[in-house]
Amino acid sequence: MITSTANEKIKHVTMLVRNAKARRKEGLFVVEGERISREIPKDMLEECFVTKEYLSQNNPDDICPEVSPTLVSSEVFKKMSDTMSPQGILCVCRTRQMTLGDLLDERADKDLKLLVLEGIQDPGNLGTMVRTAEGAGFDGIIADNNTVDVYNPKVSRSTMGSLFRMPVIYTDDLPGAVDRLKSSAVTVYAAHLKGKRSYRSQEYGNRIAFLVGNEGSGLSEEISRKADILVRIPMSGRLESLNAAVAAAILMYNVQTQDH
Amino acid sequence: MITSTANEKIKHVTMLVRNAKARRKEGLFVVEGERISREIPKDMLEECFVTKEYLSQNNPDDICPEVSPTLVSSEVFKKMSDTMSPQGILCVCRTRQMTLGDLLDERADKDLKLLVLEGIQDPGNLGTMVRTAEGAGFDGIIADNNTVDVYNPKVSRSTMGSLFRMPVIYTDDLPGAVDRLKSSAVTVYAAHLKGKRSYRSQEYGNRIAFLVGNEGSGLSEEISRKADILVRIPMSGRLESLNAAVAAAILMYNVQTQDH
Repeated sequence: MITSTANEKIKHVTMLVRNAKARRKEGLFVVEGERISREIPKDMLEECFVTKEYLSQNNPDDICPEVSPTLVSSEVFKKMSDTMSPQGILCVCRTRQMTLGDLLDERADKDLKLLVLEGIQDPGNLGTMVRTAEGAGFDGIIADNNTVDVYNPKVSRSTMGSLFRMPVIYTDDLPGAVDRLKSSAVTVYAAHLKGKRSYRSQEYGNRIAFLVGNEGSGLSEEISRKADILVRIPMSGRLESLNAAVAAAILMYNVQTQDH
Repeated sequence: MITSTANEKIKHVTMLVRNAKARRKEGLFVVEGERISREIPKDMLEECFVTKEYLSQNNPDDICPEVSPTLVSSEVFKKMSDTMSPQGILCVCRTRQMTLGDLLDERADKDLKLLVLEGIQDPGNLGTMVRTAEGAGFDGIIADNNTVDVYNPKVSRSTMGSLFRMPVIYTDDLPGAVDRLKSSAVTVYAAHLKGKRSYRSQEYGNRIAFLVGNEGSGLSEEISRKADILVRIPMSGRLESLNAAVAAAILMYNVQTQDH
């Protein structure tokens, strides 16, 4: 049993929990809690840490049959944990190493629905968007590097497991990525106050992407200019804008295939 | 200028910021920040507190022309504030004293669209629902007493001003309130996994209410049994549920009148 936070394994996990750069560099991230741990695909699970209290009440073989769990003291677990009331199980996972090229190859000549994010700052909003994208049958999310890290513990928790199933691809060149979508026969739509047509009366093809921008400032001029079509989400009352995750949900569910 | 947190006025504001019971008892709440303060309707504004720094850069007559602002030191302001970076303006507002009876009288024989909430716990979710309800042209929100207080500073902030325009009525008898809606010719719909028909293929009348339940456990058996019609929000992938604010947004925007 590990009883010291000076242990190298523990220091490594703590760094992964706190540091987005370390997560990116190593291609690893940490999820915590029983429910989300159960959803980790086998090929993404690297390591599993549990407390004695957790072990005495649960069979971790249910959760991480592939790796033998490392036992840590509850004091050490508290230090590793990002939550107020730790459940006593925490897993290190491998991030999906998918590029935009991989995704476009995989979906070449097929239907394709993507969400493209610019500068989303709120972890809860990003987590909710990943979750809603799965529900709406979307194929992936492209995000610029100003968007909060999807492997941040607050975000991964709020995806409710969708993170393991929905590809989220970061790019340091969002305008270039949008151009690449357009040259791959994807029609790009942006929700915009200047949009003339309501999102509901718009017709959508089989290969589409929705651009959604920062919570406060919306989409940049540069990115919204790249959209093929600007659509408007009508708003009653005196509201200036909708929450970004709500706007994304309304657009995505509007094109959800209804035959299931 | 008030320079002591022992001042009675300051103690009163601090209590209103922190204590839901005090807010309910006195019918007062506190909002903070320039943007939301600008949206306070005249008849809801009670008091306004500003720092010297704020006064030197702004004209509070723009914001609270009806009440002369009380000057407080920035140290005192920090103690009153609920935010990390206080902007130096904070207002005490009167809550809207509307009952379900008032709302039903006001909208008798008219179109009526309501959102009915049971046990919503997350402040950001509730704030987003109030904001989305305004955007979708809804007339009010009914919530049980297990739902987080809408006048909680975290909630009011995330409504982006909608709180001043959207009636939110709390009840300690939600089943009774739903019965009252039904006997007032309102058709009650619940989003439910057992719903046979998709929310999109459902026809909706002119007087409707949507029931939305707690983030983790959904609607109680007692409340969902009261619904006239259960509708299903289809989900792709392996998702078990949508975020509560997203589910509410999808339902509300689906019935938004499109002629504006």
